[in-house]
Amino acid sequence: MSQVRSSKADARIALSRLFAPIADDLAAVDRRLQQELHNDDPFIDELAQHSFRIGGKRLRPALLLLSAQAVGRITPEHHTLAAVVEMVHTATLVHDDVLDEADVRRHLDTVNARWNNQTSVLLGDYLFTHAFYLASTLDTTFGCRAIGEATNTVCEGELRQTAGSGNFWLSLDEYLRIIEAKTAELCACCCRLGAYYAGGDAMITDRLTAFGRKLGMAFQIVDDLLDLEGEEQTTGKSLGTDLAQHKMTLPLILLREQLSASEASRLQGLYDEQDAGHSGLLLQWLDESGALAQARQTAAEYAQHAIEELSGLRDSDAKRVLAQLARFVVARNA
Amino acid sequence: MSQVRSSKADARIALSRLFAPIADDLAAVDRRLQQELHNDDPFIDELAQHSFRIGGKRLRPALLLLSAQAVGRITPEHHTLAAVVEMVHTATLVHDDVLDEADVRRHLDTVNARWNNQTSVLLGDYLFTHAFYLASTLDTTFGCRAIGEATNTVCEGELRQTAGSGNFWLSLDEYLRIIEAKTAELCACCCRLGAYYAGGDAMITDRLTAFGRKLGMAFQIVDDLLDLEGEEQTTGKSLGTDLAQHKMTLPLILLREQLSASEASRLQGLYDEQDAGHSGLLLQWLDESGALAQARQTAAEYAQHAIEELSGLRDSDAKRVLAQLARFVVARNA
Repeated sequence: MSQVRSSKADARIALSRLFAPIADDLAAVDRRLQQELHNDDPFIDELAQHSFRIGGKRLRPALLLLSAQAVGRITPEHHTLAAVVEMVHTATLVHDDVLDEADVRRHLDTVNARWNNQTSVLLGDYLFTHAFYLASTLDTTFGCRAIGEATNTVCEGELRQTAGSGNFWLSLDEYLRIIEAKTAELCACCCRLGAYYAGGDAMITDRLTAFGRKLGMAFQIVDDLLDLEGEEQTTGKSLGTDLAQHKMTLPLILLREQLSASEASRLQGLYDEQDAGHSGLLLQWLDESGALAQARQTAAEYAQHAIEELSGLRDSDAKRVLAQLARFVVARNA
Repeated sequence: MSQVRSSKADARIALSRLFAPIADDLAAVDRRLQQELHNDDPFIDELAQHSFRIGGKRLRPALLLLSAQAVGRITPEHHTLAAVVEMVHTATLVHDDVLDEADVRRHLDTVNARWNNQTSVLLGDYLFTHAFYLASTLDTTFGCRAIGEATNTVCEGELRQTAGSGNFWLSLDEYLRIIEAKTAELCACCCRLGAYYAGGDAMITDRLTAFGRKLGMAFQIVDDLLDLEGEEQTTGKSLGTDLAQHKMTLPLILLREQLSASEASRLQGLYDEQDAGHSGLLLQWLDESGALAQARQTAAEYAQHAIEELSGLRDSDAKRVLAQLARFVVARNA
């Protein structure tokens, strides 16, 4: 337990080292978040402060701030937008926990476990609407539009995932479309907003957007891998929720694709009627077939393509950190 | 059954007559909603089309359009914003049905009954985010800001209501604050947007905003009354959900206030441990004490104060309809 805790802690330390060039700005974003989420009603304030701690690694604010710094200068608008994207992300986490019926996230009780589903639904809505309000305090509608589009795409992705749930024959294309919508789109939006509000031209803004999208793909593939491989103590989330919910993810799809019809049908049997024993067999099969390694390789390729999108940027600390971040996303084990 | 159905149908006919001066614009808003909610994914499209039918009486778009017409001219921006407020309202309905575990709304299955809670949460988020995106397509951030603020207040109101749930001693002030936030604020926002985008000056915009707020108070008080009095077939919703959920509403608060300590304690007993028999006793007590009538009187006073806010407007069909609408909101029985 202490060992797995420490691998999680190691990951945090690694990230905070990586984010050193924007440490002051991330602190400013955290202050902004706490200030925005303060509420005179003690119940709402307690909920909002709890959600502030759920957010965790601040990956999305960091993407936004680093993209800004890679292009020009970080401004107060970036701080506002970084708070917005973190709030939106937290809203989706709070609602995900209702959907997953998860009890633990980042070693904290989830909102639905500590309070109830009703409170989780409303708190997620509260965070969403506050984020949109905050985006609307900027001078133009650019930020609102980017956030509105990206979050709508996130919801579409989650709905498509729900529709595909339990479908053993989910195609690789549809899996990739789903994770692009539910995860990569918001990462792309972060980089886009960072670059645009730092005065980046259309070309550089588009390339950073593509960087964020590819990094987001790598991130989600690894998240799905960790869900399969991970232990509760390592990832700080409830274990194996994807399998328990019959969610098809990349390793399972890759394994299925390499099987004969009769083998695939055996795999489907394990997938459809898993109990504790079956999921052990499934994991062993995924491991021994090389499907887990192949999925991590796919994530590494997305990360590599992300890094290539940075080639047009002048050299800077921020550019180096973005590249390191893409590598970290794949290498992490928590 | 056919009789109660017809009282619901009567209410619809009365409203559609009332809305005759803006019938073409309401039809344009409906077309806009259907167009916006179309999705290439058949599952999402089916959900979105279902939610389009849930919305129902189009009260909020009507408030927005009538406020515009009372001040000046209805523009394409008003159509967009009317679609936005209806979408936001529908999102809150979809999430309310998760919270209430309701099975029927407007004689249609609720989303959580036909699909599941997971789908309802995501569909609500999809509608919220689409609404915000749509608001951001206007030229300035005014609409985004007004919608962001109002919807955030709605969520605050719903959270405060959750916190107060089961509290027999909920104060009258807190009840009024809750319904102002969860219902009246969005009605106020509709009138504000209507007036502002028709070129209304600050004074006229503020007075129409106050009109919307007071009408919204009257509307919610009557909604709570109908929840107590109504029959499932009349209101088209699951019956007595407020009582079943130990939600204190105005009639109960008014009854409690007129009781001695020992009588109040007996009322609390009925409230805390209701079963079918107890809720019958409760309703009889509410009726015979005059608390139901007193609550309807309170709603009528809000409606009257709303109408007084219209005094600064030049005479017009729209002004007359707004006043009639305030009266209708109180007189309706469905």
